[in-house]
Amino acid sequence: MSRPPETVSDLVARARGGEPRAVARLVSMVEDRSPQLPEAMAALAPHAGRAHLVGITGPPGVGKSTTTNALVAELRRTGRRVGVLAVDPSSPYSGGALLGDRVRMQEHTTDPGVYIRSVAARGHLGGLSWTTPQAIRVLDAAGFDVIIIETVGVGQSEVEIASLADTTLVLMAPGMGDGIQAAKAGILEIGDVYVVNKADREGAQQARRELRSMIAMAERPEDDWQPPVVLTVASTGEGIDGVVDEIERHRLWLEETGGISASRTRRARDEIEAIAVAELRARWESMSGHTDLDALAAAVAAGESDPYAAAATLLGPA
Amino acid sequence: MSRPPETVSDLVARARGGEPRAVARLVSMVEDRSPQLPEAMAALAPHAGRAHLVGITGPPGVGKSTTTNALVAELRRTGRRVGVLAVDPSSPYSGGALLGDRVRMQEHTTDPGVYIRSVAARGHLGGLSWTTPQAIRVLDAAGFDVIIIETVGVGQSEVEIASLADTTLVLMAPGMGDGIQAAKAGILEIGDVYVVNKADREGAQQARRELRSMIAMAERPEDDWQPPVVLTVASTGEGIDGVVDEIERHRLWLEETGGISASRTRRARDEIEAIAVAELRARWESMSGHTDLDALAAAVAAGESDPYAAAATLLGPA
Repeated sequence: MSRPPETVSDLVARARGGEPRAVARLVSMVEDRSPQLPEAMAALAPHAGRAHLVGITGPPGVGKSTTTNALVAELRRTGRRVGVLAVDPSSPYSGGALLGDRVRMQEHTTDPGVYIRSVAARGHLGGLSWTTPQAIRVLDAAGFDVIIIETVGVGQSEVEIASLADTTLVLMAPGMGDGIQAAKAGILEIGDVYVVNKADREGAQQARRELRSMIAMAERPEDDWQPPVVLTVASTGEGIDGVVDEIERHRLWLEETGGISASRTRRARDEIEAIAVAELRARWESMSGHTDLDALAAAVAAGESDPYAAAATLLGPA
Repeated sequence: MSRPPETVSDLVARARGGEPRAVARLVSMVEDRSPQLPEAMAALAPHAGRAHLVGITGPPGVGKSTTTNALVAELRRTGRRVGVLAVDPSSPYSGGALLGDRVRMQEHTTDPGVYIRSVAARGHLGGLSWTTPQAIRVLDAAGFDVIIIETVGVGQSEVEIASLADTTLVLMAPGMGDGIQAAKAGILEIGDVYVVNKADREGAQQARRELRSMIAMAERPEDDWQPPVVLTVASTGEGIDGVVDEIERHRLWLEETGGISASRTRRARDEIEAIAVAELRARWESMSGHTDLDALAAAVAAGESDPYAAAATLLGPA
């Protein structure tokens, strides 16, 4: 028995009704860059804009997945519906599930208040900024109160997560040479809440002291948000309630100061830019079927032109 | 005593004459996105297109810097001038030198046939694809025979390095669970030469066998390039001559098959696209001074519009 094809408006209605399969289908449409995406985003947009976006980042080995899991459990305990997007920006190849993900899914699989999904962030079309905001919009319109965006990668994705999220959690662990690492990665500029996980290990208090003094050195204006440092042992859940409290406190601060609307506008701006760039690249690709970009590239490769002149030809006048 | 300002054509002439300071100035212009860059690239373009670009990538800890150093020494022994660009795509913040770089510079500092330089690849304007090709053009026009592009980061930069380079070296080390990692990262699709470094450690032969069988499974057409696997101990220089031989063999193969010209055209194409995108973003930024992009973003954030409709407004008709 074949079923009639699902229309976008059906899917959106069912996703808004909390049906996990419909949510999954819509996120897959984002990942697969379905031609119906514009229609889906237009249908979802009026229902989005309520969720609190929490980004989680930090170097490998600090326990990001474990912490995410513990946060999900704690947020559920307080009655909130939670969506998780585990973004792997280092994998342009696989759109599939990450290692360990099935295990995590199983833990919450019977709870309709939780939706966990891996999304690949293919590099070429703008990384996180292309795929993730659209997947967020799906979960947001489906009524999840908190959406956790966890990055699996390292490096520049940290910065991208911070520009996506309303509230950015930076995870560290004792004894990882955090001080130098933090300074190098500019991680002190992006965290709203710092978490020293694995705090049952030696050096946790020292890591917290170091972090605090580095944060203090940044000398934020008095009325600016002052990032707290929370100790946790995510594997046992210890301290996780404190993290949830700080996330909530940051959200309230954002709402009081208008920061939440600024954060949403910034995210929309990056998203529009990323979609516009992807659309332009697609136009150039199809143009190159008619040799324009290919001819320009060949001329540059031969030293007969330079890339700026070629780009100017491609774009036309400002 | 103040000196007259250096003109771009002066700098280009002196860089072509092999003056390291002029090369450094031009690379800094790339990093700083100098307004004179278009002029510099136009002046350099006719003199570029000879260098062999060798990309080096691999997971952290396999000895990329040590291998690069050993390759530089071996290539110098055979009389070739070598430029090295150490690209740090994970650092959007620092344009400065990487840790360890000064040490490496010192080793070759008295040799005018070697130029080593760290370049930051700021994420937002297109990562590697924006900065690196222009820095490559500087070294290429300055007459370096081989330009090694070493990535310090992990993840998608591997793929970007492969699309930049004529010849891509993928480094591994014994006992790192290379098999699964390689499959996961899609690393088997990008290497032209595989190097198992630290081959004095246990498991080197097994790592080579595994790599070979995985490469064999890819079943490339018989007349396609079959990536070799070379064992090295970069810290002592053991096996490095073999790597240089394979790099040279790959270059000859590329020239015979026309692959070198295809590689250069692809690189130019990516570069033109990246510059065009950066230029567009700059136009949008300045436009947003006149509220257009900001207004679109606010409408999307408020759920009154969706990002596709906004992007379409931004771009105008195809």
